[in-house]
Amino acid sequence: MTRRLGFSARAIADIPLIQAGDDIAAIVLTKARAGGLVLQDGDVLVISSKIVSKAEGRYVELDSVKVSEAALALAAETGKDPRLVELIVNESRRVSRKRPGLLVTEHRLGFVSANAGVDQSNIECGDEAALLLPLDPDHSAAAYRLAIRDELGLDIAVVISDTHGRAFRVGNVGVAIGAAGLPTVNDLRGKPDLYGRAFEVTQVAYADLVASAAHLLCGEGDEGLPAVLIRGLDTGGAPGRAIDLIRAADQDLYR
Amino acid sequence: MTRRLGFSARAIADIPLIQAGDDIAAIVLTKARAGGLVLQDGDVLVISSKIVSKAEGRYVELDSVKVSEAALALAAETGKDPRLVELIVNESRRVSRKRPGLLVTEHRLGFVSANAGVDQSNIECGDEAALLLPLDPDHSAAAYRLAIRDELGLDIAVVISDTHGRAFRVGNVGVAIGAAGLPTVNDLRGKPDLYGRAFEVTQVAYADLVASAAHLLCGEGDEGLPAVLIRGLDTGGAPGRAIDLIRAADQDLYR
Repeated sequence: MTRRLGFSARAIADIPLIQAGDDIAAIVLTKARAGGLVLQDGDVLVISSKIVSKAEGRYVELDSVKVSEAALALAAETGKDPRLVELIVNESRRVSRKRPGLLVTEHRLGFVSANAGVDQSNIECGDEAALLLPLDPDHSAAAYRLAIRDELGLDIAVVISDTHGRAFRVGNVGVAIGAAGLPTVNDLRGKPDLYGRAFEVTQVAYADLVASAAHLLCGEGDEGLPAVLIRGLDTGGAPGRAIDLIRAADQDLYR
Repeated sequence: MTRRLGFSARAIADIPLIQAGDDIAAIVLTKARAGGLVLQDGDVLVISSKIVSKAEGRYVELDSVKVSEAALALAAETGKDPRLVELIVNESRRVSRKRPGLLVTEHRLGFVSANAGVDQSNIECGDEAALLLPLDPDHSAAAYRLAIRDELGLDIAVVISDTHGRAFRVGNVGVAIGAAGLPTVNDLRGKPDLYGRAFEVTQVAYADLVASAAHLLCGEGDEGLPAVLIRGLDTGGAPGRAIDLIRAADQDLYR
């Protein structure tokens, strides 16, 4: 990666409430244009997983959920709605931690987060329905990137962002759960430091930094800013996938 | 916090190698001015903990370290230099995880990270010396903020950033270990979502997002970009301290 001295981030305004089947790439391009944003080669588009899920129709009506015995027991332990717990378990490989009010799992996509991303905020019918994460966000990011290339002939990187809590620290940050067209992990191992001493283990979670930068604008409340365009970043180097940001089980000390 | 549509980040170039006793605020202001950056009320200045440590003279010569029996045992377990392990233990409240090549501790400032931030990269004499984290980075951030106010009459927020690895995910991100003049945790609990449904548990690690955004520019290699100015962020609301980002032990499931 080459040295850059600056970047800018701008939210794409006036994105409407997204419905199942909507064409996210087309909507984002239309609203960017309406807002006077002219996309350029090398721009990074950060899209909230929430609208990707909505476009993919990842809603589940809670009344339709058949609750297993295992989910019922876990619901009793955590004090959560058994139907939500059933959805969480279905989206997960395993439970990581649980206690009253909290259920942390390893999502089928590999990351560890609260409630497997099953969410009732910022959706219609939030008391009777829930929204699952996108089916394959790395694939969705690649599809948006291709759609933009087909439409505008531009080389735009795409990050699909989610918000995760963290062990040890208060508050959510942005993370990349889908990515295309930029490195996701920037490996400095073996590169020289300021004094020529080689780094031993440093890797930078580049796509997560991008997601966190965008999260400074998109927020999680009623602001409704689910897409952010970032200009000036170094997107050179081998492009990665968000799944590259998942630490292998045998490398993790906190499972 | 009010809705913002954009922000920009720019690294402050040509900051010299910092020596013990250097006046960080003065150097950063001088180099910002030299680079054509005119600071404004509401700007956020992100400063790498590395140069804060250097200015505070937090070097330790490894030959001067007296190694305890406990550190010797831990060094054998982890394969690390016993003198480094002694420094790590002295900077820590307790060991969180250990294995060959890795020692994760709870730092005296509360956060959990590898090697308690004791670092040999990007310092002079990196084979014979190590650099500890700043003594009280929240205090240092407040001091820089005041120095800038005294010098320029401007209301500038300051974040002192470090890079941490994470449980579950590959790669380092930026985190705030010192802060002054901006909220560090943005609490959305009880606020309405897009559909008027109240959030239950959402808090945003705002100062960590700021540190991660800056980390897109400052890097960790030989680029030497230890200060970034961010313009356009919402810094309103009750200012916090970086220590507010530390989750209380009884609230954490991964200790």
